Amino acid sequence: MIPDFTFEKTHQSGNARRGVMRTPRGDIQTPAFMPVGTAATVKAMYPEQVRQTGAEILLGNTYHLMLRPGAERIENLGGLHDFMDWQLPILTDSGGFQVMSLANLRKLDESGVTFRSHIDGTAYELTPERSIQIQKKLDSNIIMQLDECIRLPAENEEIERAMQLSLRWAERSKTEFDNAPGRALFGIVQGGDNNDLRARSAAGLVDIGFHGYAVGGLAVGEPQEVMFSVLDEITPHLPHDKPRYLMGVGKPDDLLGAVERGIDMFDCVHPTRAGRHGHAHTRFGVINLKNARHKDDPRPLDEQSSNPNCTRFSRAYLNHLTKTEEILGAMILSQINLAYYQELMSGMRIAIEQGRFAEFAADTRAGWAAGDIAVL
Amino acid sequence: MIPDFTFEKTHQSGNARRGVMRTPRGDIQTPAFMPVGTAATVKAMYPEQVRQTGAEILLGNTYHLMLRPGAERIENLGGLHDFMDWQLPILTDSGGFQVMSLANLRKLDESGVTFRSHIDGTAYELTPERSIQIQKKLDSNIIMQLDECIRLPAENEEIERAMQLSLRWAERSKTEFDNAPGRALFGIVQGGDNNDLRARSAAGLVDIGFHGYAVGGLAVGEPQEVMFSVLDEITPHLPHDKPRYLMGVGKPDDLLGAVERGIDMFDCVHPTRAGRHGHAHTRFGVINLKNARHKDDPRPLDEQSSNPNCTRFSRAYLNHLTKTEEILGAMILSQINLAYYQELMSGMRIAIEQGRFAEFAADTRAGWAAGDIAVL
Repeated sequence: MIPDFTFEKTHQSGNARRGVMRTPRGDIQTPAFMPVGTAATVKAMYPEQVRQTGAEILLGNTYHLMLRPGAERIENLGGLHDFMDWQLPILTDSGGFQVMSLANLRKLDESGVTFRSHIDGTAYELTPERSIQIQKKLDSNIIMQLDECIRLPAENEEIERAMQLSLRWAERSKTEFDNAPGRALFGIVQGGDNNDLRARSAAGLVDIGFHGYAVGGLAVGEPQEVMFSVLDEITPHLPHDKPRYLMGVGKPDDLLGAVERGIDMFDCVHPTRAGRHGHAHTRFGVINLKNARHKDDPRPLDEQSSNPNCTRFSRAYLNHLTKTEEILGAMILSQINLAYYQELMSGMRIAIEQGRFAEFAADTRAGWAAGDIAVL
Repeated sequence: MIPDFTFEKTHQSGNARRGVMRTPRGDIQTPAFMPVGTAATVKAMYPEQVRQTGAEILLGNTYHLMLRPGAERIENLGGLHDFMDWQLPILTDSGGFQVMSLANLRKLDESGVTFRSHIDGTAYELTPERSIQIQKKLDSNIIMQLDECIRLPAENEEIERAMQLSLRWAERSKTEFDNAPGRALFGIVQGGDNNDLRARSAAGLVDIGFHGYAVGGLAVGEPQEVMFSVLDEITPHLPHDKPRYLMGVGKPDDLLGAVERGIDMFDCVHPTRAGRHGHAHTRFGVINLKNARHKDDPRPLDEQSSNPNCTRFSRAYLNHLTKTEEILGAMILSQINLAYYQELMSGMRIAIEQGRFAEFAADTRAGWAAGDIAVL
C-alpha cells in the first residue's frame, strides 16, 4: 500500500508558512527551493552534491526529457530517479512552458499543442492527457497540469481565453491523473495581472480539487512589484491546507518576498545558471567573480560560511577559474549558489517556527544591502 | 631543514622498475601517472576527487600559468598548491613545449625564446633562467629545464642543433636552480629519432647531473613503434638510480609499453580530454559513450569496477549526458578515466613487486583486445 501524498502546515509567522510535504520518496520541508535538473542532471553537479546542499526535491523538465532521451526510454530504464541516481522526490513540469518558449512551429488548439523539437525538428503533440502520461512514465512524484502560459502585457480577452483553456485542461488532467497512488497533482492558477481572472482561475481549480496549487504565468519579465501584487491578491483564494508553488522563481529576494506572501515552493535555473556565468550568491548579495577587484584577493568568498567551497578557495582563484572559463569554476559556483539558496530556505523555515519571520527578512535584506566586503 | 628530493628503486621485473620518489610534500610511488592541471585545475575535477583516484602528484603548465593568472600573482597568493588547494607534490614543465605549439610570433635564439600570448598578444620572454625562476615562484616540487623540442621528421643537422642548444640550456638551468632545498630539477633528453644524438644528449645531461631525466620530443605524432624504439635505445644511457620521465605520454598501451622499457613517470591530458569527448577508458579498452549502442543499455560501464561512477550510472545515462553535452558527463568521464589510469599504474606497481610484470602486461592487453561487453 503506497502512502498518499500529504501536506501539513505546522507554523505561520505573518503570512509566511512552515510545513512539510510527505511523499513515498521522502519528506520535503517547506518553504522549499527545488534545484532544476533540466536534462536529468542539475548542471555541473553530482546528485549527492545537490543533496548535500540540503535539497529534498528536484524539478525535471518534461519538455527536455520527452525530446531527449525520451519518456518511454526513461520508463524502460526504471524511471528518472534511477536514471539520474536521485532517489528523493522529483516534481516535473508539464512541458507547456518550454513548448511556448523553445519549440518551433507551435500550434495550439482546444485539444493541446503540436510543435517541432528545437533540437532536430521532430514533430510532437502534447495534450493534457499526454503530459500526465509522460510525467507518470518519468515516475514523477509531483505532477503538474498542462496549462497555457501567455506573455505579459496582454489584452484581458486573451488572458481570459488562456485562463479558461487552462481550467478545461486542468479538468482533463485530473481525469487522466486518476488518483495515481503516492503521486500528487498540482493545478496552475493563470490570469495574468488581472485580479478578477486570477481569482476565478483559483476558484475553478479548487472546485476540481488538487494536491497543491501553483501560481503560473509570473516571472515572465514583469517587475517584481507586479509579481508580489499578484501574490497578495491570489493567496487568499488558495486553500490554507495545500502547498502553494510559485513556478520558475527566482532570485533570493524574490523567494523572501514570496514566502512573506504565503508561498511554499519554488524552482528556478537561476542559481546554477548564475554560477556558470561567474556570479556567486552570498549573504553579501551577488558577487561577480569575473570582476578585476578579486584578481589578487587572497580572501575567501565568505570566511564565516559553513560551506567549504566558500572558505577553501581564494577570490583570486575563483576569479581565475571564471575568467579562464574552467569547468571547475562552474562546478564550484553552482554548488555555492545552490547551497546559499538552501541556507536561505532553512533560515526562513527556522524563523517561521520561531515566529520571527519579519525580523529574519529584515536582517537578510540588510545583509544584501550592505553588500560585499570592502576591496582590499 | 627541508629534506632533499630522493628516488629509490625498490624492485625490477624485466626492464620495468618499481620505486618511490620522496619530496617534502609527500612520496610518489613509481611508475606514476601525473594528471595535468593545465590552468591550475584538472579540468572538470575537484582536487580531492583527483587525489581519490590515487594520484600523488600533478603537473602544472608553466606557459598557461605565466600568462594567466601570472607567476608573480600565484607567488603572492602563496604558491600553486594553496592557489588550487592541491597540497601534494606538483611537477611543472618549462613552458617551452607550449610556446612552440601555442604561442604566436615565436623567435628563438641562444638566449631563449620570445613570443606573444595566444590569448591577448602580450609579449613575453622565456629563457632557461626565467623558466626556473617562474617554476620556483609557482612553488613547483619538480622543475623541468627549458629545452627546444622540434617536430619529427627533421634533418639530422636540425635535430643536433636543437639537442646541443638544449644541453647548453640544461647547464644554465642547473646554475639557476642552485640546489634549491627540497626541490628537484630534471634534465630533458632530446635528439629526435637519431640514436647517436639521443645517446650524446643523455651523456651530456648525466655529466651536468640532475635529480631525474626526462625523454622529450616524443609523442609528437610519431608511430608508437618509433617511440618504443627510441626508449629501447635511450634507457641504457640513463642512470639506474634516477627517475625517468616520458613527457606528454600517453594512452594506456603507451604507458604499459613504456614502463616495460624502464620508464617511471608520465603525464598526459588524454584521460581528461577523452572524458570531455565522451570516451571512457576501461579494462575493456576505450568505450565511446556517444555510440548509439548504449542508448537503451541499462548496464553500468563496468559492473566489476571498484569505482562508483563505473557502477552507479547506466550506459544509457552516460550516453544521454554525452550526447546532450552536459557538464556532468565530462565530470563523470574525466573521473572514470583518471581512476582507470591510476588503477593501471597501481596494477603495474604490484606486478613489478611480484616479479610478474610480463604476465600483467599480457593480461591487460588481452582485456583491451577482447573489447567491450557484447551489445544487448
